[in-house]
Amino acid sequence: MTWIFTNAELDSVLTMKDCIAALDTGYRDLAAGRGGNRGRAEIVSPAGTDGTVYALKSMDGVHSPSGYASIRLNSDIIGWREVAGSTRREKVPAAPGNRYVGLVLLFSTVNGEPLAIFPDGLVQRMRVGATNGLGIRYLARADAGTAAIIGSGWQAGAQAMAICAERPIRRIRCFSPSKANRTAFARDMAARLGIDVEPASSIEDAIRDADIVACATNALDPIIGHNHMRKGVHYSSIKPAEIAPEAINACDRAVVHLQDNAPLVVRTHGVVLAEDRKGAHAPSAKVDESAMAELTELLTGTAKGRETAEEMTCFLNYSGIGYQFTLVGGVAFEKARAAGLGRELPTEWFTQLEHP
Amino acid sequence: MTWIFTNAELDSVLTMKDCIAALDTGYRDLAAGRGGNRGRAEIVSPAGTDGTVYALKSMDGVHSPSGYASIRLNSDIIGWREVAGSTRREKVPAAPGNRYVGLVLLFSTVNGEPLAIFPDGLVQRMRVGATNGLGIRYLARADAGTAAIIGSGWQAGAQAMAICAERPIRRIRCFSPSKANRTAFARDMAARLGIDVEPASSIEDAIRDADIVACATNALDPIIGHNHMRKGVHYSSIKPAEIAPEAINACDRAVVHLQDNAPLVVRTHGVVLAEDRKGAHAPSAKVDESAMAELTELLTGTAKGRETAEEMTCFLNYSGIGYQFTLVGGVAFEKARAAGLGRELPTEWFTQLEHP
Repeated sequence: MTWIFTNAELDSVLTMKDCIAALDTGYRDLAAGRGGNRGRAEIVSPAGTDGTVYALKSMDGVHSPSGYASIRLNSDIIGWREVAGSTRREKVPAAPGNRYVGLVLLFSTVNGEPLAIFPDGLVQRMRVGATNGLGIRYLARADAGTAAIIGSGWQAGAQAMAICAERPIRRIRCFSPSKANRTAFARDMAARLGIDVEPASSIEDAIRDADIVACATNALDPIIGHNHMRKGVHYSSIKPAEIAPEAINACDRAVVHLQDNAPLVVRTHGVVLAEDRKGAHAPSAKVDESAMAELTELLTGTAKGRETAEEMTCFLNYSGIGYQFTLVGGVAFEKARAAGLGRELPTEWFTQLEHP
Repeated sequence: MTWIFTNAELDSVLTMKDCIAALDTGYRDLAAGRGGNRGRAEIVSPAGTDGTVYALKSMDGVHSPSGYASIRLNSDIIGWREVAGSTRREKVPAAPGNRYVGLVLLFSTVNGEPLAIFPDGLVQRMRVGATNGLGIRYLARADAGTAAIIGSGWQAGAQAMAICAERPIRRIRCFSPSKANRTAFARDMAARLGIDVEPASSIEDAIRDADIVACATNALDPIIGHNHMRKGVHYSSIKPAEIAPEAINACDRAVVHLQDNAPLVVRTHGVVLAEDRKGAHAPSAKVDESAMAELTELLTGTAKGRETAEEMTCFLNYSGIGYQFTLVGGVAFEKARAAGLGRELPTEWFTQLEHP
């Protein structure tokens, strides 16, 4: 059978600790040659006459020890708008029912069969959070008790979960330009995490005594500047623009998820994206990522994590990889099936007798 | 709704002429920047202890004028065996029911929605044949009346269909090492094409008076050597090894599907494939593809096709592209729906409310 799951089903079984553990093992396997990744590629094309763009994105991964392979894809309509003086890239829910299109297809490396197909949203959220969680494990102060989250969306929630999974957090402050959004985030995450979560009216208010500052936005302009920094704090980011180059360079220790991980972008009609114009799609030329350690080096001990309480550290988690979906998707599949969740479809629909 | 089709359903509506027309338009659009392609990538990994390999393969394409985008993927178990002194790469039907795993996912570039999911076999067959068909259009003699097919599999049938779609063919001779296979091929294709199709007991017998010689094999060793060549004949190939380098170099005019189209191969466990050992995965270093015209140049008139009846020509159609699945898959989808074929699944299963 090939299983179909919903994001809500996967959310009901998958914990942030599961995801961090799966990535921890998986990255070590990748370093040891037991896993493989094919980097993200996008084909971008005009979608409408309103400046929106169609993007077909895909990335693949294989994890031999668990016997899973996956393809993650997005079929997106993308627009840009100005919010609070900053340009945001936003996916437009243009599919029927005002929905987004992102999928994970999970396969067995033992017999090739398609095991499951599910929307990518929940796993996408968890793998991003879990990756930053591994950064926190090695780079944040062991006694970190307070955190700031910049952003109030789907990804911001995962950052809060990851921080709490790795450190004894008592209080989180959340800033987002929308008062309604930050208030809702604080209420929802307090209930989910069982700790104090407060909305903050400015970035400065959110970060004022935070030990960990996690950005989780769609901003194409810097949010954390050099002037925002304090000793002992760990900064983390999920987009290249979020932490200003001067702030990254001021850190005593900066670690990047993966070097040389820029996506391959193919264009029709010579289409130009807002992030191309701003130079914000790729890491800043003012930041020398090649001088930084990669996450896997922290895990395998070939690079050192935090050594003193005073260090300013940062973890730059740009451009995830398909391999993360293989790792987290495999665990999600197993837990969802163990809980009896999902709808089954005939595997014959997704296989064939003909040698192609 | 998201539609599910079978290979048999698509085969009942899709003609070779449809496919050649779709590629003809599509390649011109690609040259004009109205289409986009992301090249083939494979992650290869050990599958079992018997030397078989697991391969996850994917390729993507977007065709703006028709509003289709697609991802084509394979989740294969691959083995190698010796047949008649030649090494063959063979997919193992290891999925439940002894089936192969290859899929096309078709999307709309207008709203991103998943329009259809179907096995890749029929479209794979037709797009390969149709591509060689375009080569025949420009490179074979206009009065070509006889053809040889080397191979008797799924792809060999498509080559026969493409040759007959482009030239007034009266007779085809087919050689395959298996007498049963070549006999069955001759019987089936004679019925399908309404012409004389004969099994031949050797390559020499098959090609002796053929105006077009089409190879459609999984061989990793040369089939057509310099000694097999005659003036005026058009040779075509779907794998790098099929026509020996000396034979290609002896042609008066050699055209390649696309230059610089080698797949990206990622390996776990340092796995080595038989084609790596033989150097047969990539085009031979003895052949200078960079000096050849590409198919699109024939279509747009920037390169010339056959100019005299005496020329020996060849068309090398190695490593297809995802974009072909977008073009042929789009036509297949439209014709299958117009005929009322397919099973519908809720699009909600393949979309989401969450911004991923």
